Amino acid sequence: MKARCVVVDSSQSPYSRLKPVPIESVKLKDDFWAPRVKTLVEVTLPTQYELLEETGRLDNFRRAAGKVRTDFKGFFFNDSDVYKWVEAASYVLAFNRDSRIEKMVNSVIEEISDAQDDDGYLNTYFVFERKAERWTNLRDMHELYCAGHLIQAAIAHHRATGERMFLDVAVKFARHITGVFGPGKMLGVPGHPEIEMALVELYRVTHVEAFLNLARFFIDNRGYGLVGGSVELIDHRPFRELEEIVGHAVRSMYLNCGAADVYMETGDETLLRALKRLWLNMTRCKMYVTGGLGSRYVGEAFGENYELPNRRAYAETCAAVANVMWNWRMLLATGDAEYADVMELSLYNGALAGIGLDGKSYFYINPLADRGRHRRQRWFECACCPPNIARLIASVPGYFYSTSKEGVWVHLYASNDALIELNGRHVRLVQETNYPWSGHVEVTVYPEGLSEFSVFLRIPGWSRDAVVALNGKPVNGKPEPAHYLELRRRWEKGDVISVDMGMGVDVLKSHPHVLENRCRVALKRGPLVYCVEQTDNPGHDVWDLMLSPDSSFRVEYKPDLLGGVVLIHCDGSAVDTSVWTGRLYLRVEDSVMNLKPTRFTAIPYYAWANREPGPMTVWIPMLDTGLRNR
Amino acid sequence: MKARCVVVDSSQSPYSRLKPVPIESVKLKDDFWAPRVKTLVEVTLPTQYELLEETGRLDNFRRAAGKVRTDFKGFFFNDSDVYKWVEAASYVLAFNRDSRIEKMVNSVIEEISDAQDDDGYLNTYFVFERKAERWTNLRDMHELYCAGHLIQAAIAHHRATGERMFLDVAVKFARHITGVFGPGKMLGVPGHPEIEMALVELYRVTHVEAFLNLARFFIDNRGYGLVGGSVELIDHRPFRELEEIVGHAVRSMYLNCGAADVYMETGDETLLRALKRLWLNMTRCKMYVTGGLGSRYVGEAFGENYELPNRRAYAETCAAVANVMWNWRMLLATGDAEYADVMELSLYNGALAGIGLDGKSYFYINPLADRGRHRRQRWFECACCPPNIARLIASVPGYFYSTSKEGVWVHLYASNDALIELNGRHVRLVQETNYPWSGHVEVTVYPEGLSEFSVFLRIPGWSRDAVVALNGKPVNGKPEPAHYLELRRRWEKGDVISVDMGMGVDVLKSHPHVLENRCRVALKRGPLVYCVEQTDNPGHDVWDLMLSPDSSFRVEYKPDLLGGVVLIHCDGSAVDTSVWTGRLYLRVEDSVMNLKPTRFTAIPYYAWANREPGPMTVWIPMLDTGLRNR
Repeated sequence: MKARCVVVDSSQSPYSRLKPVPIESVKLKDDFWAPRVKTLVEVTLPTQYELLEETGRLDNFRRAAGKVRTDFKGFFFNDSDVYKWVEAASYVLAFNRDSRIEKMVNSVIEEISDAQDDDGYLNTYFVFERKAERWTNLRDMHELYCAGHLIQAAIAHHRATGERMFLDVAVKFARHITGVFGPGKMLGVPGHPEIEMALVELYRVTHVEAFLNLARFFIDNRGYGLVGGSVELIDHRPFRELEEIVGHAVRSMYLNCGAADVYMETGDETLLRALKRLWLNMTRCKMYVTGGLGSRYVGEAFGENYELPNRRAYAETCAAVANVMWNWRMLLATGDAEYADVMELSLYNGALAGIGLDGKSYFYINPLADRGRHRRQRWFECACCPPNIARLIASVPGYFYSTSKEGVWVHLYASNDALIELNGRHVRLVQETNYPWSGHVEVTVYPEGLSEFSVFLRIPGWSRDAVVALNGKPVNGKPEPAHYLELRRRWEKGDVISVDMGMGVDVLKSHPHVLENRCRVALKRGPLVYCVEQTDNPGHDVWDLMLSPDSSFRVEYKPDLLGGVVLIHCDGSAVDTSVWTGRLYLRVEDSVMNLKPTRFTAIPYYAWANREPGPMTVWIPMLDTGLRNR
Repeated sequence: MKARCVVVDSSQSPYSRLKPVPIESVKLKDDFWAPRVKTLVEVTLPTQYELLEETGRLDNFRRAAGKVRTDFKGFFFNDSDVYKWVEAASYVLAFNRDSRIEKMVNSVIEEISDAQDDDGYLNTYFVFERKAERWTNLRDMHELYCAGHLIQAAIAHHRATGERMFLDVAVKFARHITGVFGPGKMLGVPGHPEIEMALVELYRVTHVEAFLNLARFFIDNRGYGLVGGSVELIDHRPFRELEEIVGHAVRSMYLNCGAADVYMETGDETLLRALKRLWLNMTRCKMYVTGGLGSRYVGEAFGENYELPNRRAYAETCAAVANVMWNWRMLLATGDAEYADVMELSLYNGALAGIGLDGKSYFYINPLADRGRHRRQRWFECACCPPNIARLIASVPGYFYSTSKEGVWVHLYASNDALIELNGRHVRLVQETNYPWSGHVEVTVYPEGLSEFSVFLRIPGWSRDAVVALNGKPVNGKPEPAHYLELRRRWEKGDVISVDMGMGVDVLKSHPHVLENRCRVALKRGPLVYCVEQTDNPGHDVWDLMLSPDSSFRVEYKPDLLGGVVLIHCDGSAVDTSVWTGRLYLRVEDSVMNLKPTRFTAIPYYAWANREPGPMTVWIPMLDTGLRNR
């Protein structure tokens, strides 16, 4: 069977506006993502595999299968890390049948399937003496969460390789679960959402309606106190009545993914309305400028509106990954470019910061300001983030394009060569660009046997003066930020669409109720949020740097720095804080500080903490607060 | 036996510069503290007593004594709440033999003593089936913490009433503890410090050196991993090597109190040096402008230097109370006015905010900015704070004065009539003032039989231009802020010292690395920190108010508002945030806001959240950041 590997297969979903394009259809040829995928294959996946072994995560499966006698190791949800790794590796196999990866995957899958019970149940924690505890603590014990990741991994493997063995394991477990839960059976919901989207995806693969129904059951029954009724677990109120995005950020995102998937299959508008309400609250009141989510260490949770501390940002890597996942689903469901904006933002900033340039060091927590103590680690006891960022990067090619009956949609920009199925035929699109360093993109169209169709070009929300031309001539229609520009015509082989998105330095402010950002600005260029890091700015503590409204910026591409980045050189100033030595509070008249003109340099946020430790900040103080007396 | 009730009896301590004056020697006659003590007696202590009963805390003692058959109720450290209540009530009995309070105290003491084991052990959690677990988990189970509070309560009761029964219970338990712990016996330290200062105080009462030695043992052995080695428990490094104030704020303060007490008895300079180092780090880098301590919800802990979020301040009431306790000990040890400054600051702001004006509602957490969701509660499951603020208020008269061989020290200001023992004779001091609303104080001296001695007047750190006169004539010597002004002479009956501390509105800034306070100021007048609360300022969201360097202030005493307060009326402005509706991030050029001149009103921080809920902030944005180009 030929592989057709997509992350969310809404191609048959009746309420999905857009249809995905398989990962393997898009060959990355760029200097940004292609090297990252290469590092993923060569470093990230092998080192994570070793860590799965080293930390006993694979032994847990061997133990459950009776192959080794040992204690269960680590957290009760550790199976999920193995599954996410398999999912990541499978996406790679879809476009790169790397034999080393394939061998690892096959051996892991064998361990997993050997650990399955005859009745389909599969969780290495609840075996032997803990068998009686299965499904007895849905709130805390993450059984359904692990099951969801197993299902997602199995689907990815099946779609990437065409093989069925691992998928059969998942289906068998899913059938076991549908036998346990549902109307007239056990009434319960998972403490940690995840299985909802997995079950919908399994329905998409198998067409077994029981899987879709159970996903819906879990969403419908949430909010009635079945897992304790807490806000943290988003169990305090029925999903359709949620007004504010609250609780554990990753759980919230995964739940929203599941609800969006159920919507795409059922057309249940009450779900879509709730999702849009939550999305608005999140993006207008609770999302970091990086797309990071989660303001509180306590409960890894969203805070109140405008509660977005920088130094104590939680902004878990998994939450940014899940923000991509949710927005991808919203984009598929609606075709609205605002979801693509948030998806791109989270991808390039909040999520990407979660992995070091070495491909083997990770952040779990992603502060937006730091004094140099927060450093990437090779692994975590709770290691949800490393395989999550791995599966995101492995699947990046799958987020570039979609199709609808009208034509092809271009969401992301990077040099690539894509062969896209459209209405039973094919279109080849070749992108050439230095995005995200340059906003100039050329898309060459090869309509292989097709004639009239549309190309929908995403004009990012940050791009105010985009110019689109076809074969050198400006097109009709004004490119609107945060919209898709539809180009419809009879395409000829070699037609060249060019998009020019001016990449000036955007100086952003945040809502005045975000306390920490008062009188501060963030620099953004194209999709990338910048920060100032100490190592680039030895003259002054970077927390003492300032900008002013007439500061000028100069950009410079440095191919040898941080894997190749555009730097922003700023013409700003530094405050002399010596009056504050040994002081915490001073009368305003005693605290006047001298300002010295200074140049300093900002780097993309995703690239911080890859060199020597030191202070960093995304939000930079700015003289003159942008107020006008009237 | 005549009562002589002091909180820290350093009168015999060889290394204590100052000697305390008993609580009952100082009769409050003022409009600030006297009404609060009255409310304490009439409302706080009776309602807390009822809650001790209602929540099963007293039943736990009856259960341990075999009087009732029931399960243990609540947290394993709940005994400590009962002890702290007895301590608070005992301080009241020192100056007011209120029969209702006395009856309650006697009944509680009887329940406590009935619950004591024959071997002296006393903890209502570790009885019956849990008896075997005694002293097996010093890190988590708070046995030594509860023991410490028992000892402190018993000492307070003994000193207030002259009775010995309850003290004997404490001594018996303390002897049991010295039998368990110490060199050649069990090596351990408490997870939650507290017993250290209790044991020193018990040594001061009983002169049993074993108690002092064990206190020292607990301090000497801390930091070697005996309770897990965590930073949170301040067990990561030996006390004398601590460089930075870290960990659980209350535990840190209690530990420091114990170390200061040990210093006062032993003269161990290595302890004093560590204490001074920690104090400098705390007051220069980690203390809220209110004297509140603890920046993090996680671990109720200090953060990194300058990590002082306002909205998510933890600033536990207990930590502010303990800040008073520690600074009182440092003041006794050294006579340095800087400790009195922090003591006064914490007392009037961070601690006092912990109790509502009704005397029966409490804050556990004390944010410095809020949107109206944070409200006082009548009790907490973990109810450490209510009886802690109660014992502080009950003992307030004891912090007004000290003596040394040179004379009398005046630390706090409020109308009162004090009879102070000095070198075996007496001095009567009568203060008349409207402090903290006015900085004018008159102290009339009645040297009953004494002749030459000094009066040391505290000139607060916030008072820059204090003028001191004697019988209307300026005195020699310039009053220095944060110092004591020594007036030495042969005093005549009726000599009047007047102190004029100008009470302008101080506009404070904080160190630029305190991220949330950038471009913000706090208003302070005398010892009181102010805040703006929504209910006083209906025209604009108080988070949108601003000040400018030329803002003027007008103060107004309102006798009927919030128990009588001086308001600060500010001539500032309000920003029109409508450009931000539905926006979280905007380009700076799109975010210019209009400013409208507006008057608004600030109230003392301690008085917030006593009326209808709404936004509040201590730190108010200020136009012009106090920077000077050079």
